[in-house]
Amino acid sequence: MDFEQEQRNRVRRIPERGHYDKETIYAIVDEALICHVAFAVDGQPFVVPTIHARMGDELILHGAKASRLLKHIEAGHPVSVAITLLDGLVMARSVFHSSMNYRSAVLFGTGRVLASDGEKLAALEALTEHLARGRWQDARQPTALELNATTVVAIAIDSASAKVRVGPPNDDAEDYALPIWAGVLPVQQQAGAPLPDPKLASGIAAPEYLVDYRRQR
Amino acid sequence: MDFEQEQRNRVRRIPERGHYDKETIYAIVDEALICHVAFAVDGQPFVVPTIHARMGDELILHGAKASRLLKHIEAGHPVSVAITLLDGLVMARSVFHSSMNYRSAVLFGTGRVLASDGEKLAALEALTEHLARGRWQDARQPTALELNATTVVAIAIDSASAKVRVGPPNDDAEDYALPIWAGVLPVQQQAGAPLPDPKLASGIAAPEYLVDYRRQR
Repeated sequence: MDFEQEQRNRVRRIPERGHYDKETIYAIVDEALICHVAFAVDGQPFVVPTIHARMGDELILHGAKASRLLKHIEAGHPVSVAITLLDGLVMARSVFHSSMNYRSAVLFGTGRVLASDGEKLAALEALTEHLARGRWQDARQPTALELNATTVVAIAIDSASAKVRVGPPNDDAEDYALPIWAGVLPVQQQAGAPLPDPKLASGIAAPEYLVDYRRQR
Repeated sequence: MDFEQEQRNRVRRIPERGHYDKETIYAIVDEALICHVAFAVDGQPFVVPTIHARMGDELILHGAKASRLLKHIEAGHPVSVAITLLDGLVMARSVFHSSMNYRSAVLFGTGRVLASDGEKLAALEALTEHLARGRWQDARQPTALELNATTVVAIAIDSASAKVRVGPPNDDAEDYALPIWAGVLPVQQQAGAPLPDPKLASGIAAPEYLVDYRRQR
């Protein structure tokens, strides 16, 4: 399924890098650990990094009750969410054609606050599992008091697009003869070995999903 | 030097994680490869990932002449820029206290378009060197035509703050007795081995600054 191309989600610069299908867009959303949420108050833009999870066609965000962003969403204002995966630095022979390899998505929508404990728990499970699949069952799950202190919102993804660049540099024809190294420096977000809490009781091994951690791609 | 604490840059949630000194904030700006720029048009927020560089108290962005973001900045509208470094997934015993280790900065300001070729070249050098120190001298530098096709803006950083979380989880006292693994899964953006352009002429070795690539921290 494709999102309709409209004013807010159209990829203008280098339109051949634009994608509007859910498969491409949602794969980026699901792989990324964090997103950046933009909102505007009286013309003043704000942007906040936060964790997210996708449930169907909704993006889940959460935070403390007092969060300015979540109150803003609760009031029905539109937000824009950027999710960006950096894959490499593209070193062209010319500065002009130097670039980056990336997969980025931008989502538009308005949100609703999840009211029932059941909905909130399901969303918190999605957030927890988004970060580390298997963690929800292992961890101590939220109490009624903790649930009450947490605001969870679901943003209906009304509009979205992705922009993707892959591959080697595209230099001007006459520049290929220059004696300049060109190519891609791959970059990737990588996990190291799990670092136990200094207060961890002895005899508790790090779980498999952290020892062998990788993002689904 | 500290930025003044005001409405737009104050860290509200967990204020003890807030920082207002340039040293902390600018170190985050300088280490990160990309930033997310938020702007608003008629109340609709947008957020765009892009590369950046800092020159003193200004943040440099660039793009094609037709860029909506750059035209918006040129028209004098305020922007907000988030720069986020993710350092780890904090696995607390409870879902409620699970978190992330991160260093994030948010900058506020308005921009000006760089007009002279000299200013533009200096800014493009800063952007190039921000990504790979040493590249500017190696690469084929911009022609007059290329300079003319590129818009470069400098955003005066009027207000800013950083938010930083480090260290192990902070669980509720009674949860430390639970038989649940807790700690931090470190995450880091890492570079791989440089991948030569398939069209690279033989006998051109990858430069030192890419073979031994690391971000200043």
